[in-house]
Amino acid sequence: MSTPIEFYFDFSSPYGYFAAVEIDQLAARHGRSVNWHPILLGPIFKALGTNSLVNIPVKGDYSRHDMVRTARFHNIFYQPPSNFPIGSQVAARAALWVQSTQPAKAVDLIKTLYSAYFTEDIDISVVEHVLRIAADLGIDRDALQAALESQELKDQLRQATEAAGKAGVFGSPFMIVDGESFWGFDRFAQLDAFLKNGKI
Amino acid sequence: MSTPIEFYFDFSSPYGYFAAVEIDQLAARHGRSVNWHPILLGPIFKALGTNSLVNIPVKGDYSRHDMVRTARFHNIFYQPPSNFPIGSQVAARAALWVQSTQPAKAVDLIKTLYSAYFTEDIDISVVEHVLRIAADLGIDRDALQAALESQELKDQLRQATEAAGKAGVFGSPFMIVDGESFWGFDRFAQLDAFLKNGKI
Repeated sequence: MSTPIEFYFDFSSPYGYFAAVEIDQLAARHGRSVNWHPILLGPIFKALGTNSLVNIPVKGDYSRHDMVRTARFHNIFYQPPSNFPIGSQVAARAALWVQSTQPAKAVDLIKTLYSAYFTEDIDISVVEHVLRIAADLGIDRDALQAALESQELKDQLRQATEAAGKAGVFGSPFMIVDGESFWGFDRFAQLDAFLKNGKI
Repeated sequence: MSTPIEFYFDFSSPYGYFAAVEIDQLAARHGRSVNWHPILLGPIFKALGTNSLVNIPVKGDYSRHDMVRTARFHNIFYQPPSNFPIGSQVAARAALWVQSTQPAKAVDLIKTLYSAYFTEDIDISVVEHVLRIAADLGIDRDALQAALESQELKDQLRQATEAAGKAGVFGSPFMIVDGESFWGFDRFAQLDAFLKNGKI
């Protein structure tokens, strides 16, 4: 039985979105499943003393252009959101809650949240928007709203982010499989080769 | 007449070395020439408040592994140097001096310095090593040694680095062609597509 690909992502990360669009297909080519890990990069960046690309002078402008170009290069639909970057706690907590309460709907919710933000300019840092998207997928809106206000769910995301940091995750997307770590959508070709050959 | 690819690199950068190994072939596929720009990332990082990947906790260990893996993936011979990273002033100044005095030997010197450092573990921050490598290529050792001690050559590298910064360069390798910027060896596929199609 092949081990799954551990896939870490932040909902505010365009490269994480690109990875979310393509990872199922990549995994399926090699008979692998995917464990989806929504995390917050903020606390991880803070612990390492790093920063988001888009907040660094010059690099920020370059990376915004690179995101558009990379999406075109890979034929992925992408519209830069007008509010970017955003705090992704609400989306990440909603995803975590659905993973534990209705796992069959979790990947669908994650992909829909990502595409709402990165293709329809829907600000998924807004609770109302996340609740509506979830409700559209048949998820209990009131139960989710209550969960989003609970300390338990906040703690769960904090713990998930801490666990990711302990596993060596420092960016989005970040993939770990069979002890090998891959950072960035631009490492998908290497991840693909690794899964094909069992080594690089 | 096609414009050349402006290719910026730091001699201490493994990804810059990978790019140096492959850029002539990429350029030739599209009838382009390459302008080689040795620069120092140190002052650029300082101005932007960024840092070298390898100096950041966790990211440093990951990137050292990624360098080895990326070299293998692209069939590039690479041996991590025992002294890394290094100050690359001496190598960069030597390359600049040969570019202006014996341009026909400049690319050869650049590639030989890079491969000395990244495949033979020869520390090219050491003046003696750079002089020997240059002499082996038929470059006047004494004239180069005198140039390396001149303020003029130091100023020339400082100015080249400042010009690169003004052109938006913030990493190594960095390629600019027809107004389009590409950061990183992992953007060679996009650079290739851009040169093929005139757009991405």
